[in-house]
Amino acid sequence: MSYNKTPSITAETINQKVRMFTYEPCGGIVRHAQRLEQEIYENPGSLPFQEIIYCNLGNPQALGQRPIKFFREGVRSLREAVADGIAARDGFPSIPDSIFLTDGASSAINMMMQILIRSHEDGILCPLPEYPLYSGSIILHGGTMVPYNLTEDSGWGLEIFEVKSCLEEARASGLTIRAMVVINPGNPTGQVLSMTNQEEIVEFCRKEGVVILADELYQENVYTENKRFNSFKKVARSLGYDHKEISIVSFHSVSMGYYGECGRRGGYMEICGFGADVIDEIYKLASLTISPNIAGQILISLVMDPPKLGDGAFEIFMAEKEETCSSLLKRAKTLHKAFSSLEGVSCNKFEGAMYLYPRLQLPPSAIKAAEKERVNPDVFYVHRLSATGIVVVPGSGFDPVSGKSHFRCTILPGEDKITAMVPRLRAFHEAFMDEFRS
Amino acid sequence: MSYNKTPSITAETINQKVRMFTYEPCGGIVRHAQRLEQEIYENPGSLPFQEIIYCNLGNPQALGQRPIKFFREGVRSLREAVADGIAARDGFPSIPDSIFLTDGASSAINMMMQILIRSHEDGILCPLPEYPLYSGSIILHGGTMVPYNLTEDSGWGLEIFEVKSCLEEARASGLTIRAMVVINPGNPTGQVLSMTNQEEIVEFCRKEGVVILADELYQENVYTENKRFNSFKKVARSLGYDHKEISIVSFHSVSMGYYGECGRRGGYMEICGFGADVIDEIYKLASLTISPNIAGQILISLVMDPPKLGDGAFEIFMAEKEETCSSLLKRAKTLHKAFSSLEGVSCNKFEGAMYLYPRLQLPPSAIKAAEKERVNPDVFYVHRLSATGIVVVPGSGFDPVSGKSHFRCTILPGEDKITAMVPRLRAFHEAFMDEFRS
Repeated sequence: MSYNKTPSITAETINQKVRMFTYEPCGGIVRHAQRLEQEIYENPGSLPFQEIIYCNLGNPQALGQRPIKFFREGVRSLREAVADGIAARDGFPSIPDSIFLTDGASSAINMMMQILIRSHEDGILCPLPEYPLYSGSIILHGGTMVPYNLTEDSGWGLEIFEVKSCLEEARASGLTIRAMVVINPGNPTGQVLSMTNQEEIVEFCRKEGVVILADELYQENVYTENKRFNSFKKVARSLGYDHKEISIVSFHSVSMGYYGECGRRGGYMEICGFGADVIDEIYKLASLTISPNIAGQILISLVMDPPKLGDGAFEIFMAEKEETCSSLLKRAKTLHKAFSSLEGVSCNKFEGAMYLYPRLQLPPSAIKAAEKERVNPDVFYVHRLSATGIVVVPGSGFDPVSGKSHFRCTILPGEDKITAMVPRLRAFHEAFMDEFRS
Repeated sequence: MSYNKTPSITAETINQKVRMFTYEPCGGIVRHAQRLEQEIYENPGSLPFQEIIYCNLGNPQALGQRPIKFFREGVRSLREAVADGIAARDGFPSIPDSIFLTDGASSAINMMMQILIRSHEDGILCPLPEYPLYSGSIILHGGTMVPYNLTEDSGWGLEIFEVKSCLEEARASGLTIRAMVVINPGNPTGQVLSMTNQEEIVEFCRKEGVVILADELYQENVYTENKRFNSFKKVARSLGYDHKEISIVSFHSVSMGYYGECGRRGGYMEICGFGADVIDEIYKLASLTISPNIAGQILISLVMDPPKLGDGAFEIFMAEKEETCSSLLKRAKTLHKAFSSLEGVSCNKFEGAMYLYPRLQLPPSAIKAAEKERVNPDVFYVHRLSATGIVVVPGSGFDPVSGKSHFRCTILPGEDKITAMVPRLRAFHEAFMDEFRS
């Protein structure tokens, strides 16, 4: 691992609270022992003992269940599987030491915010609408969210000159811009960024010395023929930029895709373009919660290294995957058609992720009624809708301004449920409009 | 849930960064829907629909696997099992709504530090030696650690008048003392607090309005006939103090005990004596990482609600538990005897937890050699020891001062490994002492 030529993120410029604490149970002595263990593995007989006895951690799986090998070699091989999967996906190398396995993507995102944010003078570029984990985590770690707008009229695309002007304005106000969050495919918006758009983002972040925090959780959920998923790392490498020239962190999870194993809490982040000393600090920070759960670690490695042609499991796996993906698309189409047909509702194209994000044009008297209840119009509508047993998320949870006229609806309920839901939704909406039209 | 009469921890006095963010995907509308669902469950037919369709979260287990019921009713019943187990253990009631299931105890501890700490002017009383998750988490969240000493000569007991003077000194310097961490049974020290000592702590924290953060991870690891584990909540209730009079958070985990399932990342915290608005903020903070892993949630409920006399699994379960516990004790005794017999090494009594914390009196020339290498004497010794394949943790990782003459060793390697380790340890130590004695 080597440094950026002019790295914006160094051990000196991360959140110094992370550097200040020590955590010896997973500290220097343990890593020294791991090197000895590797030495025994590679050159048997080279040391005067055959195995390491780990008396450092209160990990009772050492009770004769051979967990030590599992934690050491086992976990290493899981990270290798993930790195291999990334390399196969992108056509560019990935190294296991750049992979951190995590309990879902959320804990990885929180960890990176904790590393990057030193004070409220550190700004993070973040889309609006956004998944509120980002704004929440930025606020929680004491930073400043610097929003940039996605524009509904261009299919929730991103205008790089607007992002640039957000960055410049933020800098003029005294902020240091540390990173740019990009959610692709989009949540809640369901868009898939074009290659051109991604290239612009890479050029911009490289030039400005801004880390790309790439939410790539929905990389397997692309439903349009015209676009495909490209990781930001692939885009950067395709443009000829290596780890010395741009810093990218990619987040992924077992919760999405065609697998949807939320309850397993498996995930990884791939960290590219940071110095070894920063990686050490991230490792220490990760050690504070000991380790992600093993089942989730195994699952994310399987997600990234699925059965291949010729493997025994291949056919059933492909059939299941295909069935799930085509069912998801079918459900999305049904819901999209239903929303689009409602009075005063328009609905964006559905390209990826798992959400529709319809726009509501409510009658003025409905907006007044919401005001009277001191809630946003979207909350008012969504709350009324919930009285029919249908739960969606108010748009203002994703964007305090434009969200007031939106809500987010997953495409995930089973086909039969969606079929049953559509007439209920229609009846509710018609009654709602009738009530407030006059 | 009701408030302390003069609660030190209210929604107004927690870390305001937690209050500042919103997280709608798990927000008000969802809790409203959950109330509707409860209504359907309790009074079937009372609402014009039979089930809630959750279109709010991108949780694809809704893909026909009936996960919604599991997440809602299932998880409720897991928390009920934990609460029942606590009630059975303590003889005092515990309510499911006070239980937060977590990915191991570490994430729960981090979450509470994040809630309690507003700035570096907030102090947390913390023992020395301590498990460095505490100091790490306090620093990470921007607070000030206020150490109190455990004294080796009294078997790592705690003198309440000393804690009081630490608190007063800290207050005089402008700090607000928010909480007191107590690790019982102790890590790294292996002591079990006496009932009298626990009562003093409860009286002290109640009087001073200080939250008790009770690390009760080793509650099943008590090996002495003379003492037993008592939760701080039980001690407080036995003294007649209810949730209005004292705030206690108890942490537990599947990683310790006779089960030792570290890799599962299961845990809970029981939160007593906080207002409902504080609980709401903790719920929101917990939602930022979505949920703990399901397997870990199930496991912690089983840990707290193990097979009972008459259950089919009871006999095998008891036999396994007994076998593990007696083997742990045997290993502890072997190691204790070995350490105690070494020149210049003394070793504390082993009462509980999973650690021995021997004291090293190294020859002056060894200390000089350490100085020359610019490391603490404990690190110097431990590093040398690791060259024999035995890994322990330097004491300075638990206490920067007294730790320089200690190291922590788990009792967890299998009996055969411990038997093999003792002569290696002895040979190393003798050679080490010979080298530096002159």
